[in-house]
This record gives sequence, structure tokens and C-alpha cells, in this order.
Amino acid sequence: MKIGVCDTTFAKVDMYQFVKKALRDVGSTDTIIRKTVPGIKDLPVACKQLLDQGCDICLALGMPGPEPIDKQCAHEASLGIIHAQLLTNKHIIEVFVHMDEANNDKELYEMCKDRAYKHAINAYWLLHNPDKLMERAGTGRRQGHDDVKPIR
Amino acid sequence: MKIGVCDTTFAKVDMYQFVKKALRDVGSTDTIIRKTVPGIKDLPVACKQLLDQGCDICLALGMPGPEPIDKQCAHEASLGIIHAQLLTNKHIIEVFVHMDEANNDKELYEMCKDRAYKHAINAYWLLHNPDKLMERAGTGRRQGHDDVKPIR
Amino acid sequence: MKIGVCDTTFAKVDMYQFVKKALRDVGSTDTIIRKTVPGIKDLPVACKQLLDQGCDICLALGMPGPEPIDKQCAHEASLGIIHAQLLTNKHIIEVFVHMDEANNDKELYEMCKDRAYKHAINAYWLLHNPDKLMERAGTGRRQGHDDVKPIR
Amino acid sequence: MKIGVCDTTFAKVDMYQFVKKALRDVGSTDTIIRKTVPGIKDLPVACKQLLDQGCDICLALGMPGPEPIDKQCAHEASLGIIHAQLLTNKHIIEVFVHMDEANNDKELYEMCKDRAYKHAINAYWLLHNPDKLMERAGTGRRQGHDDVKPIR
Amino acid sequence: MKIGVCDTTFAKVDMYQFVKKALRDVGSTDTIIRKTVPGIKDLPVACKQLLDQGCDICLALGMPGPEPIDKQCAHEASLGIIHAQLLTNKHIIEVFVHMDEANNDKELYEMCKDRAYKHAINAYWLLHNPDKLMERAGTGRRQGHDDVKPIR
Repeated sequence: MKIGVCDTTFAKVDMYQFVKKALRDVGSTDTIIRKTVPGIKDLPVACKQLLDQGCDICLALGMPGPEPIDKQCAHEASLGIIHAQLLTNKHIIEVFVHMDEANNDKELYEMCKDRAYKHAINAYWLLHNPDKLMERAGTGRRQGHDDVKPIR
Repeated sequence: MKIGVCDTTFAKVDMYQFVKKALRDVGSTDTIIRKTVPGIKDLPVACKQLLDQGCDICLALGMPGPEPIDKQCAHEASLGIIHAQLLTNKHIIEVFVHMDEANNDKELYEMCKDRAYKHAINAYWLLHNPDKLMERAGTGRRQGHDDVKPIR
Repeated sequence: MKIGVCDTTFAKVDMYQFVKKALRDVGSTDTIIRKTVPGIKDLPVACKQLLDQGCDICLALGMPGPEPIDKQCAHEASLGIIHAQLLTNKHIIEVFVHMDEANNDKELYEMCKDRAYKHAINAYWLLHNPDKLMERAGTGRRQGHDDVKPIR
Repeated sequence: MKIGVCDTTFAKVDMYQFVKKALRDVGSTDTIIRKTVPGIKDLPVACKQLLDQGCDICLALGMPGPEPIDKQCAHEASLGIIHAQLLTNKHIIEVFVHMDEANNDKELYEMCKDRAYKHAINAYWLLHNPDKLMERAGTGRRQGHDDVKPIR
Repeated sequence: MKIGVCDTTFAKVDMYQFVKKALRDVGSTDTIIRKTVPGIKDLPVACKQLLDQGCDICLALGMPGPEPIDKQCAHEASLGIIHAQLLTNKHIIEVFVHMDEANNDKELYEMCKDRAYKHAINAYWLLHNPDKLMERAGTGRRQGHDDVKPIR
């Protein structure tokens, strides 16, 4: 199958490397198609193009800035990504790491690594092994942070 | 008929169990199709896929976190869920329990139970017995909380 | 012609009765088709279903709660209602009465009555007598409140 | 060609008169088709109906109230108006005058007059004389206010 | 290939000149098609018209004002621009410079110049040389400001 990955020149961390590693680690033999765009608002149509060209799922990697206008851009991009999924009937896993989520560059880097890695696995499971997600339903899984404890 | 149920690995409570119990209690013999996705923003397309594959109605179970960014995600997911309904002409009953609606884990669990249970009944009625809803129109019904008193 | 009316079990006032009275008072012989759903976010697709099934116009009756999350739900529902209109090319007159618009239950009830009644007339005029609206253009008409004075 | 004009009974000023005067002043021989609806959220589908019935462009005249809920309504109406344009591939020029833009009724009236008049000319130019707009690109043109000085 | 450029009469700076210079500097022999509209909310459909008429990509040049209502307009325009891309499957590069991003007119002018110039190059690369973007992925590129340092 084919996995699309769209990323931006705006982001300060190359998250694509973590996606590639995760897919290799999980044993994926899927073809990866990559497209790079300037910023997060360019991601919705880029993902839609890849899905229309035959990708079975997409990962959208972006890093919104810390200002209010950046938050608004992220909101617009997210709405566009959801819209693109409804038009293609395929999943686009959004991997956004906000610059102000971390206290410093090192933390930001680790957060990018964890979130991109785990969501690449999620994308792989959605394609090849949905039971892996179902057995984790309602269990407080996090990407970019440690999991939280489920309530039973 | 077929009832789709989409839930997430992000949620801290397995709400699917309450849906299953409610449908059993109300005497449903409908087939349940379940799909689990990572987070709430993955629910709109997951529900649309189930509806396109023949489900007659969907329940979307999610648990938005307490941060402003989580509220924004919930808003985006809700808009996507409404959009998915307009594209399929079928109902998706949104069952979102915000983490900060409750004061503690026990309360959160009970809220999940009540809201998921009652909305599963609502979904059943929409499919099989719309008169049950009509006779309750304008009567202050709540899910996750006690009903409020209607004004006459 | 056929007039659809969608309302909710969440609302604390049965606004349908005021719609029925208004249509009777204005001399309508149109068929009324009613559908009741759990909450306001279920209204967009319910209205779309009625319009697709032959209704010529719809009234969407809802009562958003007083909390910020309720305001967000109302916003999402309103966007869905506008979207449903664009997809069907027919009007859906939104009759939302926010719980915190009134100071007490009696006031809330009167507001519901006035808004639902006047908007039912508006819907009737849109269908049968658009000139009635045109001669009132720019004249400060209100529903749920007294009209305001136009500026000339 | 045909110019659609949609206005509301909610507005406190009859802005249609200024549109008619502007089109006469600019030498338009276009047919004007008018539709009046209750409020601004009814404008998107009303404009879409006129465009689908053969109008080449529309003006949407509205006056949002001063409360937060009115601002939200205006936002929803604006999004619907943009959506209607994308579905029809034709322009809808939004002429919204917010009640709280002016300090008193006289100022509000003058603002309505200026904005409706100038935007009617803009609509005429979009249809018949796009070069008039291009030669004004980036020159700080305002409607409802005096133009601002461009920076060179 | 054909590059569409839409701009507004509202903006205080003629950004089109910087786009033309950038495309010339980068060696573009593409045809430029330009359309000018009154304000930013008129950009989505204008871009869609150009893309439907054969343009392969668009630049949308706008300058939102400093007031809250202007921010809301920019948000609505941005959502429309993303929507237009999803409907056409082509990129529209948004070049918005908010009036309050700069401390004075000179700074605003320079910001317009830098952002429009760099995004015109981005548009050119998306069309003719996507590898140029891919090799810059995750490297903190900015338009209107200096680039930021990537984290490795």
C-alpha cells in the first residue's frame, strides 16, 4: 500500500525522519510518497493530492508558531485536513507540534520525535492492523507525551 | 439495521461498553460495527466510512482534553461530524465527554456511562422509534447529567 | 407545500406549538412534517433529510445552554444549518433561543413563543408571499424582542 | 447582465436604495433581482438561489447587531457567503455594517450609504470593467470610511 | 504553465510588483493572469475562477486590517482559500500581511516585499521544482521575517 507524508519548510524540526524510522521499525513495506509545502495551511490540498494519486493514508506533519495568528492558522489547517478526509474517505493523521508546547528546543525536538513516531505507527495500524487500535480503545494513549492512566 | 460506533485510543474511559449495554437493554438486534481511531479529529472520516459501508447511524465517542488546544480540536471534530452527516444524510450522534466537565475520575466515569448509555438509546430511537423522541420534545432531556425541568 | 419543523428533546420549552399556532393564524394549509432529535447539533442533518424528502422550507427549533461549550455547539449547529441550505438550495429558518438570553423561566418562555411564532410567519412568507418581507426590508424587525426603530 | 441584491428585515437602514442609486449613477443597464430575508444567516442561500437562477453577481446587504452572539451570526453568515461563491463560481459582495461601528444613528446611516454605494460600483466593475479595480490594486480603498493612503 | 495572482484594492501596498519581480528573477516563463477584487473575502472565489480557467497555481495577496473584525475577515478568507484548493486540487499560496504585524509603514512595506517575493518563489517551486522545497523541509523557513534556526 502507499503512505503519503506531507511536511513543511516552516517547521524547525525534520519530522519526516521519525516517520520513516517508525515505519521501518514496525515492519512496513509500504511505499512512502512525500511532498513538502511552505506552511501548514498548504497541507490540506497537498494531502488530498497524494490521496487522489493513490495513497491509502496520509500523515500531515506541521509545526504551528506560538502567536495567536499561528493558532488561527493551525485551526484553519486542521479544518481543511478534516475536510480533505471527508472528500477522499481516507484518513489523514495530523501530526502538529505547537512551538509553545515545549519549554525549550531539546524538549520540542523530543516531542516531535515521539508524536511523529507514534502516529506513524497509528497510521500503519489503521491500514494493516486495526485490531491493534481497538484493543487500545479508551486507554489514554498519548503522542508527544506519556500515556495517561485509563479509568475503569 | 447496522449501527456504527467509532471510538478513540486517546479517551481514558472505554465508552463502547456502555453503548453495547444500552443497545442490549433496549432490545436492539442491530448489527454493531466498531472502528477505533487515535483521536477525536479522526472520528469524522471514520464515521463517514462506516456510514458509506452501510451503517444506518453512527455514534462518535470521544474525550477532549482540558487544554484550550483540546477544546479547539473538539470544535474541529464536531464540525467534521456535522459535515459527514450532511454528506451521507444519516445521523452521527456525538458523545463527547470533556475531561474538565467532571471534578474527579469517578465523576468522569459516571458521566461517560450516563451520556454514552442515553445517547445509544437516542440512536436506537432515531432508527426504530422516532415517536419516542417526539413525545420528549422540549422537555429538557440531558445526557451525562440529570434532566432539567421543562417550562410550560 | 410542505413545511418541515425539527426540534430537540434538550430544549426546555416546546416551541413546536407556537409554530403550529402561527401557521394556523396566518392561514397556512401547508403540510407540516416534524422530526425530533436529541440536541441542536443533530438539527442540520435532520433538516436536510426533511428537505430532501420534499419539504420546501424548514424551521430548526433549538435552545442552546448557557455554558461556553453550549455556545460552541450552537455555533457548530448554525454553520451546519447554513451548509444544509446551500446543499439543498432551500431555506432553513433557525429559531434558537439561548437559555441565558432571558432573566428567568417566564421570560424565556415568552421569548421562545415570540421568536418561534414570528419566524414561522417569516417561513410562510418566504414560501407564499415574499413581498411581505420585501416591504419590511431594513425596518428593524426582531423575533424574541420588540422591533427596533428604523433609521431614515 | 443580472445583478442580485439580497437584504434583511432585521437591518435598521434600507441599504437597497443606495445600491439602486449607485448602479444608476454608474450607467448600469443590468436587471436587478431583489430578495428580502429575515436575517443575515438567511443571506447565503438566498444569494445562491439568485445566482443559480441566472444572476451574474450578488450583493448581500446586512446589519449585524452589537452583541457577541450577533458577531458570531455575522461570522457564520460570512462563511456561508464565501461557500456559496465557491459553489457557484460567482462573486457575492458582502455589505455588512455592524451596528457598533458607528457612534450614533446618523453616522450609521451615512456608513451604510457609503459602503453600499461603493460596493455596488465594485460589483458593477467586477462584471463590466475589471480594469477599474486592477488600477486601484493596493491603493487602500475603503467602503464605509474614507480611503487610506497607500505606501509606495 | 499559468500562475494566477489575485490582489485587493483594500491593501495599502501593491504586492503584485514583488511577485512579478520574483518570478522574473527565478527565471519563470509562465504566463501570469491577474485579477483584482475589493477585499480579502473576495479572494477565494477569484482564485477558484482563475484555477478553473486553467491556472496551475494561485497566489492570494491580501492585507487584513488591525481590528478584531478584520482578523475575523482574514480567518474567513483563509478558510475559503483552503476550501477552494480542495475543490480544485491545486495550490493557492496565501500571502496575507496583517497591518499590525509591523510597527510603521516602512516596516510594513518591507514585510510585504519579503513575503510576496519569497512566496512567489515557493509557488514557482511547487510547480516546477518541488525538490527545492523538500530539501528545505523542517528548516525553519520564514516569509516576511528572517528564517529561524532549525533544531537537529
